This record gives sequence, structure tokens and C-alpha cells, in this order.
Amino acid sequence: MLAANRYGKSRVRLVKVSRLGDRHQLTEVTVNISLAGDFERAFTAGDNSAVLPTDTMKNTVYALAKDHSIAPLELFAMTLARHFVSTHAQASSATVTLLETPWHRATVEGKSHDHSFLRGSEERATCVARVENGEESWTSGIEGLVMLKTANSGFEGFPRDAYTTLAETGDRLFGTNLSGNWWYSEQTDFLDCRSRARTALIECFSRHQSRSVQHTLHAMAEEVLTRCPEVSKVHLALPNLHCLLVDLSPFDLSNENEVFVPVDEPHGSIEATVSR
Amino acid sequence: MLAANRYGKSRVRLVKVSRLGDRHQLTEVTVNISLAGDFERAFTAGDNSAVLPTDTMKNTVYALAKDHSIAPLELFAMTLARHFVSTHAQASSATVTLLETPWHRATVEGKSHDHSFLRGSEERATCVARVENGEESWTSGIEGLVMLKTANSGFEGFPRDAYTTLAETGDRLFGTNLSGNWWYSEQTDFLDCRSRARTALIECFSRHQSRSVQHTLHAMAEEVLTRCPEVSKVHLALPNLHCLLVDLSPFDLSNENEVFVPVDEPHGSIEATVSR
Amino acid sequence: MLAANRYGKSRVRLVKVSRLGDRHQLTEVTVNISLAGDFERAFTAGDNSAVLPTDTMKNTVYALAKDHSIAPLELFAMTLARHFVSTHAQASSATVTLLETPWHRATVEGKSHDHSFLRGSEERATCVARVENGEESWTSGIEGLVMLKTANSGFEGFPRDAYTTLAETGDRLFGTNLSGNWWYSEQTDFLDCRSRARTALIECFSRHQSRSVQHTLHAMAEEVLTRCPEVSKVHLALPNLHCLLVDLSPFDLSNENEVFVPVDEPHGSIEATVSR
Amino acid sequence: MLAANRYGKSRVRLVKVSRLGDRHQLTEVTVNISLAGDFERAFTAGDNSAVLPTDTMKNTVYALAKDHSIAPLELFAMTLARHFVSTHAQASSATVTLLETPWHRATVEGKSHDHSFLRGSEERATCVARVENGEESWTSGIEGLVMLKTANSGFEGFPRDAYTTLAETGDRLFGTNLSGNWWYSEQTDFLDCRSRARTALIECFSRHQSRSVQHTLHAMAEEVLTRCPEVSKVHLALPNLHCLLVDLSPFDLSNENEVFVPVDEPHGSIEATVSR
Repeated sequence: MLAANRYGKSRVRLVKVSRLGDRHQLTEVTVNISLAGDFERAFTAGDNSAVLPTDTMKNTVYALAKDHSIAPLELFAMTLARHFVSTHAQASSATVTLLETPWHRATVEGKSHDHSFLRGSEERATCVARVENGEESWTSGIEGLVMLKTANSGFEGFPRDAYTTLAETGDRLFGTNLSGNWWYSEQTDFLDCRSRARTALIECFSRHQSRSVQHTLHAMAEEVLTRCPEVSKVHLALPNLHCLLVDLSPFDLSNENEVFVPVDEPHGSIEATVSR
Repeated sequence: MLAANRYGKSRVRLVKVSRLGDRHQLTEVTVNISLAGDFERAFTAGDNSAVLPTDTMKNTVYALAKDHSIAPLELFAMTLARHFVSTHAQASSATVTLLETPWHRATVEGKSHDHSFLRGSEERATCVARVENGEESWTSGIEGLVMLKTANSGFEGFPRDAYTTLAETGDRLFGTNLSGNWWYSEQTDFLDCRSRARTALIECFSRHQSRSVQHTLHAMAEEVLTRCPEVSKVHLALPNLHCLLVDLSPFDLSNENEVFVPVDEPHGSIEATVSR
Repeated sequence: MLAANRYGKSRVRLVKVSRLGDRHQLTEVTVNISLAGDFERAFTAGDNSAVLPTDTMKNTVYALAKDHSIAPLELFAMTLARHFVSTHAQASSATVTLLETPWHRATVEGKSHDHSFLRGSEERATCVARVENGEESWTSGIEGLVMLKTANSGFEGFPRDAYTTLAETGDRLFGTNLSGNWWYSEQTDFLDCRSRARTALIECFSRHQSRSVQHTLHAMAEEVLTRCPEVSKVHLALPNLHCLLVDLSPFDLSNENEVFVPVDEPHGSIEATVSR
Repeated sequence: MLAANRYGKSRVRLVKVSRLGDRHQLTEVTVNISLAGDFERAFTAGDNSAVLPTDTMKNTVYALAKDHSIAPLELFAMTLARHFVSTHAQASSATVTLLETPWHRATVEGKSHDHSFLRGSEERATCVARVENGEESWTSGIEGLVMLKTANSGFEGFPRDAYTTLAETGDRLFGTNLSGNWWYSEQTDFLDCRSRARTALIECFSRHQSRSVQHTLHAMAEEVLTRCPEVSKVHLALPNLHCLLVDLSPFDLSNENEVFVPVDEPHGSIEATVSR
């Protein structure tokens, strides 16, 4: 029995250059498309009569990118999702995920350049547009926002058992690689909402008197809800990217929270969803 | 409102050497641990009195590895999951994921060596053990099994729209990087079941007259259900790793399915769950 | 016969936090150390009496980081290199490579924050300090500077042979991931020189009327030599990260250099060394 | 002054399927091509009249793959190198690097299958063919051969300084990710020589009573020279991939070389060249 299925095209990469006279705009996105619906006979009988090729999905991204703006991501993603369900009745749902690679204008003699760009950090703006049985919905998000604070972070008062060796500390480094998503209760200005949400996350992370990753995660999610009334729910994942204090005592040196080893593994994984 | 939360330790890496006289055994696994339960006050009030440190979870993996066998993965994972819920009442669920890195004995003068090992492919045996409100459950799986067949694969009879350029073909390469999981309806010999499931996947992939990735995926899942009566459900993801036929006609050469460009992106993504 | 040998420690990661009152500074570097010299009996006879453990090298990085500034990279690298040759006579040369991970202060309510930082792009400042038979030398460099220009780049007038299909174009995208190094003819203010060299590279790339990657590479290297009189030689590697124009003609759409597919592979590789 | 330059195409990926009746052969290689020669005016004057496009190099790989065998790698690489210098007089040297991705036949009902393949480990067979000013030369090699031995490895008798904390040990794990190359003094059966060299490396690593990585590296290189009389010189790089013994004493457990943490960073780096 075929209990569930979906298929589509992943990692469709697109660069669009828009030319407003000499001032060029550069946008790079990676697109994933996934369809679900009445595709059962493809699985069970090898009948491809309903199977829109994933190669066609890729072509559709490029063709629609020609006459539609990529920004805001949420509208281009929904344009794609609507296209697939409206032209292919066998698809009861289409899910389109966009992930934007940031490019910033180069600075030349103190001015932002017209047509030269530097790639930004590993932070990505993301969104998911979904049409499912006629209902449209969005989530927006951020991936790869790496932050580290060097004060106002501790971890104390935790339970100890036979395998606990961790020391309590009122002053540690707190590094993370944030992934987050938010849901909307109403249509909005997506770019403006993204800007408010991102600022909320960064400012709250920076200012919070953190007693744990959990504690700060919750405050950050609340701050997004406060600044973004159109957002109904926030999911955040804050891995704890540890910076371990180096023991310099064998060399007769003290280490007053100055010298650390950053480690990629293992790492703490903390996530939560906060809704109104 | 805190709608959901979980936390734990990820990427805990462990090598265990077991010495049976001169014949050594080498096992390498990566462990992820995730707890859920009554942790709300950590998020909302910065109260860590219930928050078992993720550092303790890491220590627990190493301590329990000392006196327990790592194989089969499923039993070691459950030993860990049970430990956390039984010693920490605030944890209503514990999910432990294991991923095994394969090592094979080196061959020296035609014989398998006692204590020298070569690392295998990117294929990983995986499992998830979960204790949730007193209920225990497992899934087992495979990740990173890269296969390619050079015959008995076509893709024809698909619908065309304004953006379709793909040619129909009765003879193409079919490459994939399989991820799969299976659920159990009863306790079993996990190692033996894994062996039967893996063989089912490889043999069916190899022999199937494939009309599409979907078609072969379904046959492979059915084959697992046939050979593993203790399995109730199978989920498979078969990305379509395209090998594109090179157009040699500009050089007055034919290309009878001989010369291909393998591409990592974009790729098709096909997945389904098949149950009894 | 042992013709050549060297050994050392790679990927030693270090985060240093300097606290100037409430204003913290954060520096992250990765250190590689390599020694050469009179180590032959370790190889040929298993005699370790001259082999300073690589673990000691790692400890030395952390111990010296305690009392030395990491910035500028070139001086900290040389401090390490001098340490190894001066304390271990068997080492006739020490080569220390540093690679800095960029962190920028978070902006909170329009101001740069005292102790919260965001990780920057994949661009890395690099340097190599070497002491060899008593001679000290440096190179400095940049890795991972990804740039893309959308105008003033063409590629025409190239030779054609039986396997050439590329069309000539006077207007293409030019993307690259720059790696570069420069050598010094005299001691200098390393931070200031780095700033001038980086600006030279970015400004020249942005403004150049490029007839080829080679053409622009040469102009960029010359610009570094012009702005940095203390630099004697520049090596640049400019891979050509292709953005391919999508053929939209099957969909009755024109594509006036608007819609592109960025591809990671294959890519052009162009490199050269320019000296005075 | 343009002191040195080269350019070419990197990461050209090629899959070739050879059909001997129903028995198919599958070969996957990645090709890098680099030319040097009289290209100065491209750099200094933007004159492309000598610049064979890297796109043409890519096409050439696919066109020549049609009528030439890819195996042995060394001959196909030289075919490509000769092509470029013989058809383009401005190229005084051509360097072609090949890297083979291993595929093994799937086993179906105990027999190796005709047309279904599983991808092997991360080990790669490599070679470099070079034509320079009419002289032809080769090196062959291996990359990514990950090995680990659990006995017969120690590290003792090393010097200690103020920063040494490492304990001496007569029994440790020794893991490495071997890269190596060998040079030829005469033409040979490349496949057979590769087989002898690889066996020499694995068998010597397995059997050696290792006093250090250096000690074993030298023995391995000597073993290649012994078994391969046509080889004049061997270069090996053996990073020391540490497995750290876990301190279980806080949990009142002993750890008799049973439980280890494998770490990717930092790692030792040991390399040497051994010639006759």
C-alpha cells in the first residue's frame, strides 16, 4: 500500500540580472519543487501519464523567472506553486522552497558599485510557499546565521548525575548557527516583516542575559512575535556551537575566559516552537 | 506559548575497539540524543533545575559504551534511550539516533588482517530508538547507498506542457543515493533483518525493468516487505542523480549511450512510504 | 633515500577574546605548523628523540596566544615560527600558516554591539611566516573572496578548433572565487598593506574592461603592485565560476543576459604571478 | 612582469559506459587540464588570439573519450596532454590530472551483476600526465585511502619542553587518510604497477611495528620501491587522524584502549619523499 509519496526537482540554481540603466541588480536563488497528488499509478504500474518530468519543473523556473521578479522570495515561490497545481490537475499540492544566496555591492572609491558584487555570508533567506487542496500558505525563514556573544551568558543550576563533569559557569561564550521559520496569520509585506524578524533575532540574542540556550531561544522567539504582529508562530533551532576554555594551567598560565578552542562536534541541539 | 521543544547532543563520535585475543573488532558510530518533556521553565524562566546538560549526555554515551556492545546498533541506541528516561523523570521521551561508519578488515597476503582496517563507502547503517511515554519503538535504515544501473531504465509516456523539452528515452542511466527507513511490527534479529532489507534493495534495484524512479522505488519497497515479514512499513528516498548524455554531434561523432556528464545539481527527488 | 620531509600540526583552531572594559574583541584563526630539519632518524630508525610532538605544537599555539596579540596575523605567525626554531635546534625551518575567520560586530539599535558578533563571509585573510636557516620571510594573502560582475566582461577573438563550440560574446557575467598571495620586499604595516591590497583587488576587478579572466587578473595584480610599494610579487588564482545563459527560445522567450544558471563544475582555472 | 602563468579547465566530470554484449563497464573520472606557454599577450594586452577556450578543453575530453579507453588512466591522460600541445603550438606544456571515482558491480544472488554498480569508498586512483617542451612524464597516485590500525603502534621517547603534556604510549590507535604519488623511471604496465604499489602500502601499514607516523611512512615508501622496480621515487602524506582515549575515571571505569573519540581537527601532518 502506497501510504505517501511526493516528488520534484531539487537544487535548481538561478541567477537573475535586472538592468535599470547602468544600475544592475543581482539575485541568486536555489529552488526546490515538490508535488504530491494522484501519482499512484506511476509507482504501482509504471504509468507515467501523470508524471510531469522534473526536467520540466526546472525549465519552468527559468521561464517564469524571465517575466517575474524574484523578490520578494515569497511571491515568486507562490507564483511557481500556483503554476504547477493550476496546470496539472493531478497535483493536489505543490511546495516550493527558495533559498537566497546574498550578494552585496562592491565598494569602489567609497561608493557602492553599479555592477560588481561580493558574495555575503553563509546566512540564507528562505521561504516555503505551498498550495494544498486549494489552500495557499507560506512560511519564511533564515538559515546559517552564525552568531557568538562573549558576555551575558551562563549555565548554572542544572541537575548532576553519575555522568556529569561539566562545571557551572556564569560567564561563557555562546555561539550558534541559527535556523528559524515563521508562519503568518495574514498576508503582509514580506520583505519588511523579514527585516523586522531578523532584527528581532539579532538584537535579542545580543542583549539577552542568557541563563541557557533554551532561555535565549524563547526570548528571541517572543521578540519576533512582538515585532511582527502578522506572525502567528515561530520555530527556532539554536545549536550550541561550543567554544571550550583551554586549560593553560600546565603552562603556569591563567585563562580568564580569553583563549578558547571552537569545536564543530559534538554540539548541543536546542529547538522550540513558540506561538501566540 | 511554548508549543513544542526538544534538546540534546548531536554528533557524538565514538570508536570502540574490542579485543578477542589478537583479533580486534572496530566499530565507529555517531550518536545524536534528543529529549522532550517537562522543560518549559528552562525556556520561560531560565530555570535549569531540570536541564540535564548535553555534556552529560555525551559522557553517558562513552560510559555506557564501555560495558555494552555497540552492535546491533538498535540495542545500544535503546540502552541509551532507556537510560535517559529512567534516570530523568522530567524527560517524557528520548530519541537516540545512531549512524555507523563502515570499516572493513585490510587484506594482507590474501587474508583478512587482525587489527588493520580500511574505511568503507559513504553508505551508513542508521537506526532510531525512541522511548515515549513508556512506549519503545525503533526504525532502522540506510543512508548514502549510491547505486547506478546502465540498462533496463527508461522514462517515456510522460505529459508535456509548454515548458517540456525532455526527450523520451527507453534507455538511460539511473543513478541514485538511497536513503531509507523501515518500521517493525515485532522485535526481531536486527542484524539479520538489516541484511535482508539491504539485499532486497540492491537486488531489486539491479533487476528491475524501470519505467521511472517512482516505479523502481515502489518495487524496492515491496521487496523489503516481502523479505522482511517483521517490517510493517518502508520509507525510501531516491534522488535521481542525472547522468546527461553528451551531444557529440558538433564533432561528427555519434554517442550511443556511451559518454555522459554526471551532475550533482539539479536533481530529481522522489520519495514514498509503502506499508502493508 | 629520504629526499625530503616535513611534519607538523594542522587545523589548530583558536578563538581569543580580548576585553577592553565592556568592549570585547573577538578573533578566530586556524593555525597550521610545519617543521623541517634533522628528523631523518625518526623516519629511518624509529628514533623519536628529535620529534617534538605535534600535540606540543598545538599547546604552544594556545599558550603563546595568551600573552601575544593575534593581530596582525603576520606577527603572531612569526612569533610561533621563531619559537619553534629557537627552542628546537633540530628544526632548520618552521612554516606557520594562519587563516582568519571574519567576525563582525552585531548592530543593535543602529550601534555596533560591545560583545555580540556575526560571522562574515567565506573570505579569509591568510598569511605564511617562515624561518628557514635563520632567514625570516612572509607572504600574506586572501582566500575565498567571491566576486561577480555583470557588465564590462567579454571573451572574443579566441582560436577555434574542431572541438570548439563556444560563442564569442562581448557581454557575459564574470564570477570568481579569488585566492591570492603577495610577497614583501621590506617589513611593513601588515594591516595597512592588506587593506590597500584588498581594495586594489576589488576596485580593479569592478572597473576593469575585461577581455578575459587573464586580462583582468593581470590588471588586478598590477594594481596591487601600484598601491603597495612594499610588495615585490603577487600571485593570483581566479577560477572562472561560470554563469551559463539559459536558452529560453524553446518557450518563445528571449533572454537578454537576464537569466543564468550558475554552475560549480566544470570551471576555468586561471593563475599567474606578477612581479616588479 | 608576468613571472609565471597557467590556465585550464578543472572538474570536468565524465562517465563512460562500455558495452560488451550484456556485460557493461562503468568508469567515472574527473579531469583537470592546465596549459602553459606563450600566453603573455592575453594577460598584458587582452589579446585572446592564442587562448584556446577552456570550454573547448572540456569538449575535447568528451570527444576523445568516445574513441579512447579511459583505462588505464595514465594513457588517457597522456592522450589528452599530447592532443593539446600538438594542436596548439602556443602551449609549451600541458598537464592533465585524472581522478577516478570507484564503482563496484552489485552482487545479485551471489553473482556480480552485468549492469548495476555500487559506488565505492572515498579512495581515488589519480594520475598526472605532462608534456613539457616535448618531454613526456607521468606520476600516478592514490588519494583518500583511510586506514586505521588498532595494534602495533606507539609513540615514545620524544623530547619534552615547557608546553608538552602528551603522555608516552606503547599502544595507541593509528588512523590516517593516505595521499601518495610515485614517479616512473621507465614505461610500465600502469594498472599492474598501481596494484603492486597499493598492496605494498596497505600491507606494510598493517604489519609495521610503528614507533611513529614517520617511521611507518618511511617503511611504506620503501615497500613500494621494493615491489615496483619501475618506480624511482615515492611521495607520501600521512595525516595523523587522532582517536583520543576517553577518560572514564570520573565514572569509576577503566578504559583499557577500548573507547575513543575520533577527531577531525586538529591533526598531525607528516609527509616525505623517498627515492632510490
